[in-house]
Amino acid sequence: MIRVSIVGATGLVGECLLRVLLGHPECKIALLVSEHAAGKPIGELLPSLRGECDLSTVSATPAEVAKASDVVFCAKKGAETFQWVPGLLAGGAKVIDIGGEFRFKDPAVYEAWYKELHGCKELLEKTVWGLPELNKEAVRRAQLVGNPGCYVTSAVLALAPLLAEGLVEDAGLVVDSYSGLSGAGRQYLPKNPNLFVDIDENLRAYGVGNHKHTPEIEMGLALACGRAPKVTFVPHLAPLDRGILTTAFARPKAGLTTEKAQEAFRAYYTAERAPFVRVLDKVDAVAISNVARSNYCDVAVQVVERSGQVVVASALDNLVKGAAGQALQNLNLMCGFAETLGLKGRSL
Amino acid sequence: MIRVSIVGATGLVGECLLRVLLGHPECKIALLVSEHAAGKPIGELLPSLRGECDLSTVSATPAEVAKASDVVFCAKKGAETFQWVPGLLAGGAKVIDIGGEFRFKDPAVYEAWYKELHGCKELLEKTVWGLPELNKEAVRRAQLVGNPGCYVTSAVLALAPLLAEGLVEDAGLVVDSYSGLSGAGRQYLPKNPNLFVDIDENLRAYGVGNHKHTPEIEMGLALACGRAPKVTFVPHLAPLDRGILTTAFARPKAGLTTEKAQEAFRAYYTAERAPFVRVLDKVDAVAISNVARSNYCDVAVQVVERSGQVVVASALDNLVKGAAGQALQNLNLMCGFAETLGLKGRSL
Amino acid sequence: MIRVSIVGATGLVGECLLRVLLGHPECKIALLVSEHAAGKPIGELLPSLRGECDLSTVSATPAEVAKASDVVFCAKKGAETFQWVPGLLAGGAKVIDIGGEFRFKDPAVYEAWYKELHGCKELLEKTVWGLPELNKEAVRRAQLVGNPGCYVTSAVLALAPLLAEGLVEDAGLVVDSYSGLSGAGRQYLPKNPNLFVDIDENLRAYGVGNHKHTPEIEMGLALACGRAPKVTFVPHLAPLDRGILTTAFARPKAGLTTEKAQEAFRAYYTAERAPFVRVLDKVDAVAISNVARSNYCDVAVQVVERSGQVVVASALDNLVKGAAGQALQNLNLMCGFAETLGLKGRSL
Amino acid sequence: MIRVSIVGATGLVGECLLRVLLGHPECKIALLVSEHAAGKPIGELLPSLRGECDLSTVSATPAEVAKASDVVFCAKKGAETFQWVPGLLAGGAKVIDIGGEFRFKDPAVYEAWYKELHGCKELLEKTVWGLPELNKEAVRRAQLVGNPGCYVTSAVLALAPLLAEGLVEDAGLVVDSYSGLSGAGRQYLPKNPNLFVDIDENLRAYGVGNHKHTPEIEMGLALACGRAPKVTFVPHLAPLDRGILTTAFARPKAGLTTEKAQEAFRAYYTAERAPFVRVLDKVDAVAISNVARSNYCDVAVQVVERSGQVVVASALDNLVKGAAGQALQNLNLMCGFAETLGLKGRSL
Repeated sequence: MIRVSIVGATGLVGECLLRVLLGHPECKIALLVSEHAAGKPIGELLPSLRGECDLSTVSATPAEVAKASDVVFCAKKGAETFQWVPGLLAGGAKVIDIGGEFRFKDPAVYEAWYKELHGCKELLEKTVWGLPELNKEAVRRAQLVGNPGCYVTSAVLALAPLLAEGLVEDAGLVVDSYSGLSGAGRQYLPKNPNLFVDIDENLRAYGVGNHKHTPEIEMGLALACGRAPKVTFVPHLAPLDRGILTTAFARPKAGLTTEKAQEAFRAYYTAERAPFVRVLDKVDAVAISNVARSNYCDVAVQVVERSGQVVVASALDNLVKGAAGQALQNLNLMCGFAETLGLKGRSL
Repeated sequence: MIRVSIVGATGLVGECLLRVLLGHPECKIALLVSEHAAGKPIGELLPSLRGECDLSTVSATPAEVAKASDVVFCAKKGAETFQWVPGLLAGGAKVIDIGGEFRFKDPAVYEAWYKELHGCKELLEKTVWGLPELNKEAVRRAQLVGNPGCYVTSAVLALAPLLAEGLVEDAGLVVDSYSGLSGAGRQYLPKNPNLFVDIDENLRAYGVGNHKHTPEIEMGLALACGRAPKVTFVPHLAPLDRGILTTAFARPKAGLTTEKAQEAFRAYYTAERAPFVRVLDKVDAVAISNVARSNYCDVAVQVVERSGQVVVASALDNLVKGAAGQALQNLNLMCGFAETLGLKGRSL
Repeated sequence: MIRVSIVGATGLVGECLLRVLLGHPECKIALLVSEHAAGKPIGELLPSLRGECDLSTVSATPAEVAKASDVVFCAKKGAETFQWVPGLLAGGAKVIDIGGEFRFKDPAVYEAWYKELHGCKELLEKTVWGLPELNKEAVRRAQLVGNPGCYVTSAVLALAPLLAEGLVEDAGLVVDSYSGLSGAGRQYLPKNPNLFVDIDENLRAYGVGNHKHTPEIEMGLALACGRAPKVTFVPHLAPLDRGILTTAFARPKAGLTTEKAQEAFRAYYTAERAPFVRVLDKVDAVAISNVARSNYCDVAVQVVERSGQVVVASALDNLVKGAAGQALQNLNLMCGFAETLGLKGRSL
Repeated sequence: MIRVSIVGATGLVGECLLRVLLGHPECKIALLVSEHAAGKPIGELLPSLRGECDLSTVSATPAEVAKASDVVFCAKKGAETFQWVPGLLAGGAKVIDIGGEFRFKDPAVYEAWYKELHGCKELLEKTVWGLPELNKEAVRRAQLVGNPGCYVTSAVLALAPLLAEGLVEDAGLVVDSYSGLSGAGRQYLPKNPNLFVDIDENLRAYGVGNHKHTPEIEMGLALACGRAPKVTFVPHLAPLDRGILTTAFARPKAGLTTEKAQEAFRAYYTAERAPFVRVLDKVDAVAISNVARSNYCDVAVQVVERSGQVVVASALDNLVKGAAGQALQNLNLMCGFAETLGLKGRSL
């Protein structure tokens, strides 16, 4: 049994991290850190967990958390993350950071897209971007993992095989995504309204051309193919709680057929590389309802020859494969457990 | 006052046709034809209309309906449409057909995409495709109008200015659309499940590469630009009742900026050409909630220069601007009324 | 044409008031008052109204608004209402107050349930509670009307005939209601969370035993029957935008049957007394979908003899019959128009 | 490890039964019986289970299923149930029947409310009604358990402590319940429409006064208190997938306060009697979101003294505590496992 702590335990992602840990056979929850609600039973803060977890949240220093933990999930953002991560690492803990702060080696990318100064540039050399399907060996050896963004996971898993195998042009990639509202967390966001009356019976894009996940999608695709394709990324909000459906478009190289593209997907997403990626036969079989509360990402590809486009659909649960489940998958790799341990046979 | 009848009055579109007529100052409802429910008060069949409309449905022949009517909305499909329309026209009525049967001049297109024989080829010469923004003068002179498809309206209004003005390439057009379930009508569709439990908390594509609206979108764009671009069209289902949100992508020609594209949209959608198209400043301001139950289509364009794509959003209500409202707009044109008569200042 | 102004024009109720006025043939909108957003085109503040209304919001004093208006809808709460109403009345305008401040003759009731001091006690003598089905003649003569609460309207219309005709006991009345979220307005309410993620896929009671609408329901029932029955009122939130469904329970007096109860409802809700109350045959025919965006309240009654309860269902749209539509109905009465003018043949 | 089979494996309840079994440490799935889809991999029929379960459905006789199984979940209805259960029992298997056929000792009750002849009257003597909180010892010894209805579980758990302790009158009990649509299964029900467009943005009662769960609620309450109270039960449909929220009303005996009622609930629902019933402090803390995908039933009680009613809220997941989870809880009891085994620390 390893000891695992969560910094930021009471947000939507924190709650999902706690849930995935509760069912993991080799993890013992050490500390649940929540500054603003320290000292309260978790079941009072997260009522669905009454009777499931008897721990109370605590206030603690990074050094204290590191001492009590083998692995720490850090579910904070910006300045708070920069305050936590150095001390956790210095104390010897492995850290899986859920926010965007440790995904890019180059701080300039972070600063340009997140509009914040990076407070831990010296740590970026050692950070590893944790998409297991593309970066498994590096994750296994990492002490610090930047857990990928939810949209990013859906977009990169949709396009990686096509780019890695050189089946499509690098130019003209489009990622058109729709997300449920758990992606926005439990905060009121007046600039991007998330009241029920704003979202119910509505669909709307946001962040067109400047969403923070754009450079990370491009980084993932670069990792997959060794080149540097650009992506047009358009995220939308849809009236559901969980899940991202991505429809991606690419320009096929001459001779590409649906069958060849499907073969490439199946060859790429082997059981070893990608135990949680399910390659389906039809684009219209990819549905959020099939992946919600699981760590799976379903994908399917179709070449529309009459109009010259490759269409890929991918679906995942933003809180699971897009956050907490993927974090546990990374923990499994970092700690030498089976990659799927605690992630199959469950809803999450 | 003109006399207007509806053939197929009790479906979701029929109900919306009835609603738009009830508030039109120059239309008097003549006959509400419903074969399977003839003789029943409309308020019994459509309980929301109790107290709003005292008519009962009737069974009648095309000749009888034509005699009683100046204009007939035909809200049937396939073989039934082919049985109704010839007699209505022969009887001297103007006909606005809501289905797909009279949208194409070339019956081969209909037969290839709808997988049915066309039963009224001789009438196709005189039919007029009724998207007022592109075909207003022809609609004014028409006796038979094929009312456009709902997705088609959203896609063509999104892309027409760009193609008409030669601002984008003809190749590489993508139309990624999400629709509410009223587009599927009140029938159970086991092949494309529409129970609440199938749709709630779910998103899913369907008909990728073979949706019937594809050739009609291309026909509309051809009408706009005089060329014959191909489109990749991917429709999806989203958990809402009404509305279509389309995100369209196109390859910009050199030098195109957001400002130039916006100018082109504003110049194209003048008040005269398009009293129901509202050109907004920002793609993320286009939202179904702003157009639901109205005859408006909101559009906005943005050029994402770093990745070389034009992004256009359009939103409309599939039952109103995508069906019944647009039909009334066509009626206004065919009968010499103001184009907006009975369509503003109301929810529909 | 009369001149009508709205104080508080940009909330959800204000927007609905504006919509009902836009389609009223005898009302001309004078001033749209919004302190915090003065000087902006209404279409910028309420994007669904772009192209429908060219007015801009203004900042104005009560005297200025009164001078410009024959009738004023005041859609404010608490202290703001107390600042507006005296000046509007002094300036000669008729006032329909949408909040709870002018519903009770006795300020002690307001102060006990709303937990605020009443700032205009001297005006309470002249205020008239505006449920037209129970208080029509008084409304006709009123200068100041307190428009009823949304839950109140649904509860009182459900139980009034039974109590008025003495068919049930005064003891044991239960009102179990479920409301859509537009009832909570466009504000974030952290104490009664209304984010999408709080409401989606959820049902929950709130305010049990102390909801402000309780004494107003009892006041309405007292007006109906001349006695003072007490009510147990339990409101809930349901994942929808508009509508209230109330299921009310009462103890039948000996010999009451479903048929007799239905007769009593039909006799009570004559066309003259209640042009917007539709008495249906079956409790399960009462559905929010049939009344949404209309000024109707559907009701049905059933006596369950084996267990000795009368069950009544009522459904209405909280923003229309529960707020803006009823306010227009009151305006019609106060100004001598037909009670239904501008309220039929439309969605709202 | 015991061997467990499911008859009727591909409906919504069958799928949930399969999910609960997949995570149970002492159950091995033997046969998944589905007549109409025999021979197909379960992941093809239930796409969310691809990669989670490699079994295929089979066609088999009751004797074959009994031979292969220690326990069988029978998720069929009416005539099909009567064909399956005798052979399963004769073959020595323990049977947990999910439908309504083996809940009543008296076949007349079944026949009166289900409008079908009972085909296995001779087995009713041995059947045990499986609400563990009220009937644990009998379940432990049973070979045949009738798993309770979903509404029934929510209603009986809400009212049992009050009746058992004699805190309320037997007369005047009201159970007002709202359910998500998974309760209606995956079939289209034209008589009680369950298309997305019927349910979205709607609330509606059904089966008032004649719902099949009424006598079972009364049976459960009789078991709790030794008397035979009657209940007025009004079920409704709400736009959500999972969950039932019940608001129950009862007439307090003299002197009952909220505190006394809460004490009675806490004393009644001990950890031993009811490890899955969580007694909360406030009625408005009972929410479907806290119990969805769990086997918990949350309850809270409040006495509204001014109007003389006891209000109880209960919430559960209709597919889990209302069906599959409760079935597994019964299996645990019948097989001598810990009552909570496989039911905690998981979403279901």
